[in-house]
Amino acid sequence: MSGSTLGKLFTITTWGESHGKGIGVVIDGCPAGLPLCEEDIQIYLDRRKPGQSRFTTQRNEADAVTILSGVFEGKTTGTPISLVVYNTDQRSKDYGDIASYYRPGHADYPFDEKYGFRDYRGGGRSSGRETIGRVAAGAIAAKLLAELGIEIHAYATAIGPVTIDRNRFSLEEALNNPVAMPDAVAAKAAQDYLDECIRKQDSCGGMIECVITGMPVGIGEPVFDKLDANLAKAILSIGAVKGFEIGDGFAVAGSCGSTNNDSFVMKDGRITKATNHSGGTLGGMSDGSPIIFRAAVKPTPSISSTQQTVNKSGEEIDISIHGRHDPIIVPRAVVVVESMAALTVLDLMLSNMSSKLEHIKKVYS
Amino acid sequence: MSGSTLGKLFTITTWGESHGKGIGVVIDGCPAGLPLCEEDIQIYLDRRKPGQSRFTTQRNEADAVTILSGVFEGKTTGTPISLVVYNTDQRSKDYGDIASYYRPGHADYPFDEKYGFRDYRGGGRSSGRETIGRVAAGAIAAKLLAELGIEIHAYATAIGPVTIDRNRFSLEEALNNPVAMPDAVAAKAAQDYLDECIRKQDSCGGMIECVITGMPVGIGEPVFDKLDANLAKAILSIGAVKGFEIGDGFAVAGSCGSTNNDSFVMKDGRITKATNHSGGTLGGMSDGSPIIFRAAVKPTPSISSTQQTVNKSGEEIDISIHGRHDPIIVPRAVVVVESMAALTVLDLMLSNMSSKLEHIKKVYS
Amino acid sequence: MSGSTLGKLFTITTWGESHGKGIGVVIDGCPAGLPLCEEDIQIYLDRRKPGQSRFTTQRNEADAVTILSGVFEGKTTGTPISLVVYNTDQRSKDYGDIASYYRPGHADYPFDEKYGFRDYRGGGRSSGRETIGRVAAGAIAAKLLAELGIEIHAYATAIGPVTIDRNRFSLEEALNNPVAMPDAVAAKAAQDYLDECIRKQDSCGGMIECVITGMPVGIGEPVFDKLDANLAKAILSIGAVKGFEIGDGFAVAGSCGSTNNDSFVMKDGRITKATNHSGGTLGGMSDGSPIIFRAAVKPTPSISSTQQTVNKSGEEIDISIHGRHDPIIVPRAVVVVESMAALTVLDLMLSNMSSKLEHIKKVYS
Amino acid sequence: MSGSTLGKLFTITTWGESHGKGIGVVIDGCPAGLPLCEEDIQIYLDRRKPGQSRFTTQRNEADAVTILSGVFEGKTTGTPISLVVYNTDQRSKDYGDIASYYRPGHADYPFDEKYGFRDYRGGGRSSGRETIGRVAAGAIAAKLLAELGIEIHAYATAIGPVTIDRNRFSLEEALNNPVAMPDAVAAKAAQDYLDECIRKQDSCGGMIECVITGMPVGIGEPVFDKLDANLAKAILSIGAVKGFEIGDGFAVAGSCGSTNNDSFVMKDGRITKATNHSGGTLGGMSDGSPIIFRAAVKPTPSISSTQQTVNKSGEEIDISIHGRHDPIIVPRAVVVVESMAALTVLDLMLSNMSSKLEHIKKVYS
Repeated sequence: MSGSTLGKLFTITTWGESHGKGIGVVIDGCPAGLPLCEEDIQIYLDRRKPGQSRFTTQRNEADAVTILSGVFEGKTTGTPISLVVYNTDQRSKDYGDIASYYRPGHADYPFDEKYGFRDYRGGGRSSGRETIGRVAAGAIAAKLLAELGIEIHAYATAIGPVTIDRNRFSLEEALNNPVAMPDAVAAKAAQDYLDECIRKQDSCGGMIECVITGMPVGIGEPVFDKLDANLAKAILSIGAVKGFEIGDGFAVAGSCGSTNNDSFVMKDGRITKATNHSGGTLGGMSDGSPIIFRAAVKPTPSISSTQQTVNKSGEEIDISIHGRHDPIIVPRAVVVVESMAALTVLDLMLSNMSSKLEHIKKVYS
Repeated sequence: MSGSTLGKLFTITTWGESHGKGIGVVIDGCPAGLPLCEEDIQIYLDRRKPGQSRFTTQRNEADAVTILSGVFEGKTTGTPISLVVYNTDQRSKDYGDIASYYRPGHADYPFDEKYGFRDYRGGGRSSGRETIGRVAAGAIAAKLLAELGIEIHAYATAIGPVTIDRNRFSLEEALNNPVAMPDAVAAKAAQDYLDECIRKQDSCGGMIECVITGMPVGIGEPVFDKLDANLAKAILSIGAVKGFEIGDGFAVAGSCGSTNNDSFVMKDGRITKATNHSGGTLGGMSDGSPIIFRAAVKPTPSISSTQQTVNKSGEEIDISIHGRHDPIIVPRAVVVVESMAALTVLDLMLSNMSSKLEHIKKVYS
Repeated sequence: MSGSTLGKLFTITTWGESHGKGIGVVIDGCPAGLPLCEEDIQIYLDRRKPGQSRFTTQRNEADAVTILSGVFEGKTTGTPISLVVYNTDQRSKDYGDIASYYRPGHADYPFDEKYGFRDYRGGGRSSGRETIGRVAAGAIAAKLLAELGIEIHAYATAIGPVTIDRNRFSLEEALNNPVAMPDAVAAKAAQDYLDECIRKQDSCGGMIECVITGMPVGIGEPVFDKLDANLAKAILSIGAVKGFEIGDGFAVAGSCGSTNNDSFVMKDGRITKATNHSGGTLGGMSDGSPIIFRAAVKPTPSISSTQQTVNKSGEEIDISIHGRHDPIIVPRAVVVVESMAALTVLDLMLSNMSSKLEHIKKVYS
Repeated sequence: MSGSTLGKLFTITTWGESHGKGIGVVIDGCPAGLPLCEEDIQIYLDRRKPGQSRFTTQRNEADAVTILSGVFEGKTTGTPISLVVYNTDQRSKDYGDIASYYRPGHADYPFDEKYGFRDYRGGGRSSGRETIGRVAAGAIAAKLLAELGIEIHAYATAIGPVTIDRNRFSLEEALNNPVAMPDAVAAKAAQDYLDECIRKQDSCGGMIECVITGMPVGIGEPVFDKLDANLAKAILSIGAVKGFEIGDGFAVAGSCGSTNNDSFVMKDGRITKATNHSGGTLGGMSDGSPIIFRAAVKPTPSISSTQQTVNKSGEEIDISIHGRHDPIIVPRAVVVVESMAALTVLDLMLSNMSSKLEHIKKVYS
């Protein structure tokens, strides 16, 4: 088990290294009958591919996806869907020297200790390119969820010290600027800040928020496979994420029951909540309100300013990492967050199908 | 699948409702040869059992554990360990009325939607008593980890608005006061605050921090089963937790790569890190520094002041929840956090055993 | 992982030793809304409990089941169902001497090698009593399947050299005689043969057949989780089973395609098969015909005639095993086979629910 | 879940259709440090590839494997190994007509019922070509097992009515004749019989035996994940297998305890068994004797003589299947059986590593 599989019923298994032959994913358990073509997936991959702004690596990859199996006559067949993106712009020679030392903030050192050695080229398996498989699979999950009326949107709420103003919130705007912020003013300030980071040969962190609407009530399992617990795992499994919160999140630590509880009220003849401090889950299950969660993303660890580290011979050395690196991870990670959310929600929706006898009789009658 | 099983190799399956016959857990995959008796487990359970201070429910439960299987002549046999705590102080009549409406902040409503009905007595499966199984299993995991030199300690860093002063930090102190704070001054202030909450018929949230020391380097799997990802899931699966962060956590959003990266240095001939912004993980694997994470815990949703909600007939009503409830969840949740951490770490340590051929040859030679 | 959990969605975890405090099972994933009481389960347990004829051990166990969780107001709640049967007639002293040597045909030797030591009392975890948990869970699975029109019946087709005559086949008769044979004449001959075995202080093997009717078409997953593959695992996981075949089974080795293929024909406007050489599966999925499989069961290894073995000191010794043993395993194993079949079929039916988008829309609309 | 993943720690996920772009497998959990190149895998694939004798389909496929990930500088890295064999000789037009009807003995009908439609070209996912992924993964498992001194050999013991003579048994011979029989005389007779089958436009079944040597004692888990149970599942998951038996197998039904029990004896200072009726397992764990099991393989269902069936419109029709088909499945299935055995044994050996504390301390000290 090297932990490259996620999900119980809609299961994805990713593979590939940054500078190997390609990156891919096998999706097992995709229901049959979903219309699917490569373009459906490419749209998602294009949102994370490099070279879209001056804030992303200039590695020249089209990240073009090929469907190798599981789709026939334009529809999923119910059998495994194998997707591959071949690597085309590997400049492995850029990485020759990093074989000998451990980059701060990277997985190099634990990788060597765990496995005895590592594919050091571009971070190998721990490269951000590993997320290609997640996004490709996430595109399919999102398409299937859309058929059920469920929509997922993520965006940046903070880039370094620059945060959005909720009064200017526009989901559309988040798709129009290179920092994925739903606030044009903040997006401008964030870009200025990033230019400064580049000048200082430094990088910065940020925050991503994600909203899921249209969920039926009761999705998520009451004990370990809570909707929020599975989301937390899925989001923390993204390389640079260091924190996850849902609803009021860390603010609940300072709040009171009387303010934190969301009252139930009737609206248009349906049960709903007057507020949404819970972020759309109660007892680990969806409660009918939008799911809202946030992820804290650390600064890109690869920076060209000088850093102190040790090499494999145990000598302390100074290094400066050159190559093609993003000064910030957040904008390209937004679609990764959406993808992980889609995979998590879909998997729990499928397992929820057998929650009651009534459902089973609907299918088998 | 109702999601009551956790872990791949050291697997726990919990069962039981608040007012059913008992609460229990089956541990499958505990290695043979670990000395184990009921007292080892009882020590942990006693840290979460009610009635230890004026800040916990006065439900009178000894929470005495019985080992039903898997231990012979004082040692684990390698077969499933079945543990049970029989419920003794069920006052189900206290809960008769809650059958008809949905308590704010509780799982009642999604439970009914998911399953069609629910065991409403004391929250049924969504009661805090469900964590008894986790703590009983966690005690065993912690004992096994101790044999490998790994220690886990959790404590409260915030109770409502009261936070600890790191200059007064004392791990011992956390075991001496009823709010589990490692700072005697803050603990006193926290108790005053809680008394005020009780007077106001309200409840409050708080923050728990957990530190794991003695971990070998390389524990955790690089992609989905990252150490931090699995910890996040385990911690968010605790009923009232709304946020998880590791190392600098949410603060990374505002930091720079040059400050957030931890330099590697040599110390006593071994590779170590000069700082620990990462919280002890790199690329999802342990990096040799202590693992440090925090969880945000929401206020107890059961409060006796008046709240607005709806009943099963779709009528808006006012309710006031009486019964035996803690004004704060944090103190009793501290040992639950430790337990979930122990279970997560141990499971990943067992799966890491087959990470390299060299390990396999050590076992089979 | 000690392999005590089976199933993906309808998951059972068994625990307990022959001479420990009890034997039990936790069922996770039972859909909510199934009417269930202890009597439903007891009926199944009574079919395997000892002392029902002169051919079973005289150990005096009522094997009375208690439901500890997961059932409320007479229906399953969707949460884990914990079942326990307390051991009442442990005569551990009978087994003191077997601690020191390895019984032929038993698991003693590999158990010691695997775990370093073993609970030797009555075979510990490898006792036939371990199947109590399977049967208790199987009773629930069978009840749920019955709601969907699926019936499962097993019976003995051979006891030692005595085999049934298909012309005298009567399913009812199998419930009327102590050897579970669906042929009264063969049953009589079998009992005579068993009396002879007892006189010779020997034991004998036999064959169990199982038929499943009412299955929808398409249950089972096309590659590894084939219906027949999962059945084979489930049946071979019963202690004494040494062979499994489905449909024509081993006879296919000598047959031709032209005779082994089952033609499809129309009957009453529905597609059906003219013959059933396949035993009801094609490509690992149910094909609409009855599922028919057989299991070969070895003779009880505990016999009182003298046998040669070695002790833990590596000395060759002669032993004679006394105590309370069945001269044949088959009659009591019949209900175990039915139970394992029910568990396997139900689990695959639940996972099949998400096989196509059409099903998903039925549930979520 | 479409059941395309097998294994807990050494996990394989296969994908691909007969006439899609290719067939592949992702292996997750292969330990790091195993020397591996494409040739290691190709040797296994060449044993199952078509066109090697007049008894196999004349479809012209090189079945050349490419390693896409997980190997660096000639060794496995511990990350997922993605293997692909691109299809090159798809003649999909051969299959146009089978879209409209259900071939006897094939998965067509249940496939349509389960998924709503199917990729009918060459059997799609249910084609024998699906086993390419198993064999490619099995080659790696077998190489790793060889490092631990474990060898696996399979061969045909029966082709239609022709069976081997154990007195002429030669493992080497099985690699020298096109029917994989370890007896030159029987192999000659089998070929004559197959020529006759071809003349009659018919096909035949056969039997495969497999022997595993060098196993440590205690591999396999005592309850559901018994070594024999997992082998049974793995072997029955091969398309055409209809029966599995271990050791004396079905013959135990007629035997007595006194003859079926294997006595333990001392040999060269080690515990061993005087006989091996058990086939190398006791209580589901390896007992130190060679593991011996057999699989019954049905005749190729595709035959060119006329057969009766129904079409999708529910009309009874006569068909004659032309195209490129093997008159017997057995010879090419031999390496599939070896591969499935290797995968099963290795996975259980890895999970057995954490069976006792002593093992854990060996790895973490």
